[in-house]
Amino acid sequence: MRIKGNLEIGGSDVIVMAGPCAIENKAQIHAVAKTLKSCGIKIMRGGAFKPRTSPYTFQGLGQAGLELMREVADEYGLFIVTEALSVEQVPLVYKYTDIIQIGTRNMQHFPILWAVGETDKPVLLKRGFMNTIDEVAYAAEHIKSRGNQRVIICERGIRTFDTKARFTLDLSAIPILKSMTGLPVIADPSHAAGHTNLVIPLALGALAAGADGLLVEVHPNNEIALSDGQQSLPLELIPEFILKAENVVMAIGRQMAK
Amino acid sequence: MRIKGNLEIGGSDVIVMAGPCAIENKAQIHAVAKTLKSCGIKIMRGGAFKPRTSPYTFQGLGQAGLELMREVADEYGLFIVTEALSVEQVPLVYKYTDIIQIGTRNMQHFPILWAVGETDKPVLLKRGFMNTIDEVAYAAEHIKSRGNQRVIICERGIRTFDTKARFTLDLSAIPILKSMTGLPVIADPSHAAGHTNLVIPLALGALAAGADGLLVEVHPNNEIALSDGQQSLPLELIPEFILKAENVVMAIGRQMAK
Amino acid sequence: MRIKGNLEIGGSDVIVMAGPCAIENKAQIHAVAKTLKSCGIKIMRGGAFKPRTSPYTFQGLGQAGLELMREVADEYGLFIVTEALSVEQVPLVYKYTDIIQIGTRNMQHFPILWAVGETDKPVLLKRGFMNTIDEVAYAAEHIKSRGNQRVIICERGIRTFDTKARFTLDLSAIPILKSMTGLPVIADPSHAAGHTNLVIPLALGALAAGADGLLVEVHPNNEIALSDGQQSLPLELIPEFILKAENVVMAIGRQMAK
Amino acid sequence: MRIKGNLEIGGSDVIVMAGPCAIENKAQIHAVAKTLKSCGIKIMRGGAFKPRTSPYTFQGLGQAGLELMREVADEYGLFIVTEALSVEQVPLVYKYTDIIQIGTRNMQHFPILWAVGETDKPVLLKRGFMNTIDEVAYAAEHIKSRGNQRVIICERGIRTFDTKARFTLDLSAIPILKSMTGLPVIADPSHAAGHTNLVIPLALGALAAGADGLLVEVHPNNEIALSDGQQSLPLELIPEFILKAENVVMAIGRQMAK
Repeated sequence: MRIKGNLEIGGSDVIVMAGPCAIENKAQIHAVAKTLKSCGIKIMRGGAFKPRTSPYTFQGLGQAGLELMREVADEYGLFIVTEALSVEQVPLVYKYTDIIQIGTRNMQHFPILWAVGETDKPVLLKRGFMNTIDEVAYAAEHIKSRGNQRVIICERGIRTFDTKARFTLDLSAIPILKSMTGLPVIADPSHAAGHTNLVIPLALGALAAGADGLLVEVHPNNEIALSDGQQSLPLELIPEFILKAENVVMAIGRQMAK
Repeated sequence: MRIKGNLEIGGSDVIVMAGPCAIENKAQIHAVAKTLKSCGIKIMRGGAFKPRTSPYTFQGLGQAGLELMREVADEYGLFIVTEALSVEQVPLVYKYTDIIQIGTRNMQHFPILWAVGETDKPVLLKRGFMNTIDEVAYAAEHIKSRGNQRVIICERGIRTFDTKARFTLDLSAIPILKSMTGLPVIADPSHAAGHTNLVIPLALGALAAGADGLLVEVHPNNEIALSDGQQSLPLELIPEFILKAENVVMAIGRQMAK
Repeated sequence: MRIKGNLEIGGSDVIVMAGPCAIENKAQIHAVAKTLKSCGIKIMRGGAFKPRTSPYTFQGLGQAGLELMREVADEYGLFIVTEALSVEQVPLVYKYTDIIQIGTRNMQHFPILWAVGETDKPVLLKRGFMNTIDEVAYAAEHIKSRGNQRVIICERGIRTFDTKARFTLDLSAIPILKSMTGLPVIADPSHAAGHTNLVIPLALGALAAGADGLLVEVHPNNEIALSDGQQSLPLELIPEFILKAENVVMAIGRQMAK
Repeated sequence: MRIKGNLEIGGSDVIVMAGPCAIENKAQIHAVAKTLKSCGIKIMRGGAFKPRTSPYTFQGLGQAGLELMREVADEYGLFIVTEALSVEQVPLVYKYTDIIQIGTRNMQHFPILWAVGETDKPVLLKRGFMNTIDEVAYAAEHIKSRGNQRVIICERGIRTFDTKARFTLDLSAIPILKSMTGLPVIADPSHAAGHTNLVIPLALGALAAGADGLLVEVHPNNEIALSDGQQSLPLELIPEFILKAENVVMAIGRQMAK
């Protein structure tokens, strides 16, 4: 599936998308973009709108965040993936992003599925953390039924009885969803892990199991991150992480997208 | 908490809300309303918009359904509770309903929580089937933070490993949420059960555990219901059901709302 | 089903079994037995062997505990239910108890099911906290296949993603297992709750849903209990608890066993 | 940790254990052993006692199965891992096996943990499908507290709400348990998967995430297997499977045990 320009997903290439949970300021985005570029990562992620479980925590920079991310991405020649949180936000997010992300809590908010289904940009559909594999496939179908066939599914961990990791990455969902839907399936090891030191093992595991890509949270300084700092990879670990990922990807006969 | 007129919830009175999953036609709504009236039930439920897991099943009558339900409710002197599925639907649903329902799949769709938080009608907030008790309390807080203090929480079953019932009614959530939030908490035994013959045991259990009310699916003819027929109580069972409910309610020192 | 003498379970009578998690000393058991007797409770529970998740916590009084419980029970005219933890313990527990309990962690330890299936005493089979309803029914079948038809099933909560209560009482398992197996089904609100203030709402809910009895942890002084103190009902609450339970039981047309 | 002879686990070497769910007959075991030998696999698994959820399915060959497996293993120079189902079986299984397996349903049957804790053979402790990571670590501690320090932990999937795979392999348990306990941790992709076509992706994922080995079900003819046929790898796939596993293992800087 073509994302943009000559960037493809779901073939033999594997794609990494990386960036901060929330866009915080220009220095942060520059530092991230520079590292991504130097490691050959093509797609920058970052959230401009961050409604949170509690109404009293940081809620994101909004449109200013989108503008900032677009500007920096263009400077470094990167693509962008970012989330639209509601139907009304779809046109705004559409304007700035290359891939529209649907978050885990919205996977069954059907009106937003229909709204992005009517656009012509690729959609990154995150699995609801308590949704079955069948429901993920149906959610992709809701998008496709409105015309947009470019849906990328993201396994990001499900809620189980065990709480040592934040969520339980459902490794089997990767081969099952690829086979059921024919769509590219990537993994988000950061939200599944919830702790920095679990991110790399989960990421390598997902790649070995056949994931077509990764969505990873990184941060220039995760001790002062405004959200999700405890699960972000620090920038200085990215080169080594990409090297390991590339080794695993080649071991199963694929390659990192260049 | 006052709902409308002199109807209160959350004190010593217990309130039943009943009706079909989806509004289908005039004959259906008349038959339901007539039975509710004769059994002393004050609030009719019914869905006008029914986005479903699959994009290919019945999706509801829309505005025509809202008009029909309002007309019949007024004829029989009943109040209405019905769901708004997205931010854009809030003004329309507001116009016809007495209580605005937020569905289980939208409990963490924050924009709709904010939207109903800015209205002056009571909100029936259904617990997400994947959400913790803390997250339910936070979702109520999202509504209240915008000004609307009249939130009724509904426990409707959570997703667990057991699949004999459709969901697992989390009985302990009733006393915990009442105590944590100070808000009225009702139970929906129909969605938890998934099968008609489990509805009454779960309903009585929830009342004995302290639920301030029930939300129950009923249908004139559940063999031909366009949705959720297998979990609806047939109308002819309602009088006996209300009698049993009233006995349990009195056994714990409360009474049915009159 | 006849338990012993003229005590029956599974008909219109409802039976309460109560006692401490672990037998600790004579004063404790006397205080418990005296309260049970005065409230009309017929069956005393208590554990002599308490292997615990951690190898470093209190492990029970062993045979001395069984002897103590039998002596006190006989003095007050009570029956006993207590757990056998392994195949080798079955003959010893058999000698002292009236009902042999199989614990939640042993529900699929088939050799112990077969061992109690070869005795002639009633078996209280606790549902595994992560076992499906079908697996409970099969476990009962393992016992019955060896000849012993007197199996009482106990729903005691299942493990789910929510951790506010210790486990989630699966209310629907009560009517489903009664209907599937034809066996008496009781509920253990104490282990499901994990907190004293949730025990009574869960107990009343289980009775209203049709439970044939309750298994409840009580303690003369739960602040110094050697195990499970935080979920035991203090003795002074028992009379009021039994009164409430009796009201609910009568509301659904049954009565407490006398 | 030394297993036997110069076979080590938990260092930089990765070990595969493979064999049928149940030992069925001499031809089957010979075919399996021959394939293992030719692929460099050092340890053969196989069950002699197979108590099953239902009392009415195949329950295993018993001691005759143990004798058969030992004889064939010696002929091919393989080591054996097989399960003891109860305390009484420990001496018998000890006599024939090199590694004693504790099954998922017995992980909290403490008497058997103590029994194998008093032997001098390595123990393969399978995680209970319902047990938290903390509980697994405590179960290992129960064994070690009786003297036996050679415990290998096996992640084999946990029970979650999703039923597309038989269980959900908890990938994060691998690095967490290695770090918490310092013990070797292997993975059983076969029981997690429940379907042959998921076994290889899960196996490779577990290795990339740092598993010290694999426990895999294989069968000469899985269409006629007496148990678990649908999740066994056919023998003809083993060479290719081992090649893929070796590639992934080398990609993360380890090697297959030789």
